This record gives sequence, C-alpha cells and structure tokens, in this order.
Amino acid sequence: MRVASVVELRPEYEQEYIELHRAVWPEVLAALKAAHVSNYSIYLHGNLLISYLEYDGDDYEADMARVAEDEATQRWWQITDPMQRSLRESDSEGWWRRLPEVFHLD
Amino acid sequence: MRVASVVELRPEYEQEYIELHRAVWPEVLAALKAAHVSNYSIYLHGNLLISYLEYDGDDYEADMARVAEDEATQRWWQITDPMQRSLRESDSEGWWRRLPEVFHLD
Repeated sequence: MRVASVVELRPEYEQEYIELHRAVWPEVLAALKAAHVSNYSIYLHGNLLISYLEYDGDDYEADMARVAEDEATQRWWQITDPMQRSLRESDSEGWWRRLPEVFHLD
Repeated sequence: MRVASVVELRPEYEQEYIELHRAVWPEVLAALKAAHVSNYSIYLHGNLLISYLEYDGDDYEADMARVAEDEATQRWWQITDPMQRSLRESDSEGWWRRLPEVFHLD
C-alpha cells in the first residue's frame, strides 16, 4: 500500500525543519518501522511538504493510531506540528492530507 | 535512486488527464520500464501533479533522453504537455520540476 500526503510548511521554519529531519530521533524511526512503514520520503516544493511511504501491515489505521500513542513521536510532533499548517479538509482526517493516486506503474 | 517531481495541471484538463492515466499506452509504459523506471506513481493535489519514481539504471540522464526519443512517448507527450504548465525554473531542466528530498527512511 502506497500513501502520499501533504502538509504546509510555515516558511519561517524551513531551515529548522530541514535540519531537524537530517537527524530524526531513532525512537521516532523505530515507531514507524514497528508500524510497518518503509521507503518513507519527504520532499519540499515551495511551502509544501510532500510525503510518500509504503505500508505492508494489515491495518493501516490501527498502526497509525499506535504511532500516535508513541511517547517519543508525541514529543517529536510537539516540535514539528507548530512548523506546519494542516491542509486536511476535516478534523476526522489526519494532520497530513492524503492525496489521490492518478497513475501507477509497478 | 528516487525521483520526485511536480508539474501544474491546467484545471480544465483535470478529468481528461485522470481518465487518460487510467489506461496509459503500453508502449509508453514499456519505454519507461526499458529505461529502468519502476514503482512510478502520480498523485494530484489541487492543480499540482506530484510524481514519485524509482530508477535502478546506471545513467539517469541518458535513460531519460532515450525515453524522450521514443516515438510513442513523443505522441503521448503531445497530448499531455498541453494539459500542463511546467514549473521548471530554467529551460535546461526537464518539463517536470525535480524536488529536493528532506527526509528518507528505508
């Protein structure tokens, strides 16, 4: 399963965000790995952060809920969320807005 | 090697672009495969087309030049290019604007 999503990066935090992501905390990476996330990249286009990841578990929502309960991840998000503005259309969505796939070639 | 890039989709072509990409011509897909491109997805965010692909050849520029010489691909681009506005910053860049990666987790 492939997941692409976007969030807005507040321009005043661009350099700080980039530097922070050069050395993401090992606990945060471990929580993602434990949640069956792999091949996870984040790209920057203007003020837009674009993420692409692959998920090979059985229950994406449940695994993402587990990531959200991880204590290190919560501390990480306390730092990164204020650097961002969510582009979700309703509160029921995640912080990052998920994008529709219009093409795929294996 | 991972490549993410963006191009603007002219809003009046949104539906046509989506439908066209539900059945990309086999020759176009074959040219990409022959150029060592795999795991290629395109996502839509507003008017922005976001592509992600993986390349496992030895010379990306040369392989992309070969794709650009492919006759079916040229006909395909004659249809799709007018649906798009390039976001490249100079003519020396490709039609799609390549994005910097700010994070990656294998």
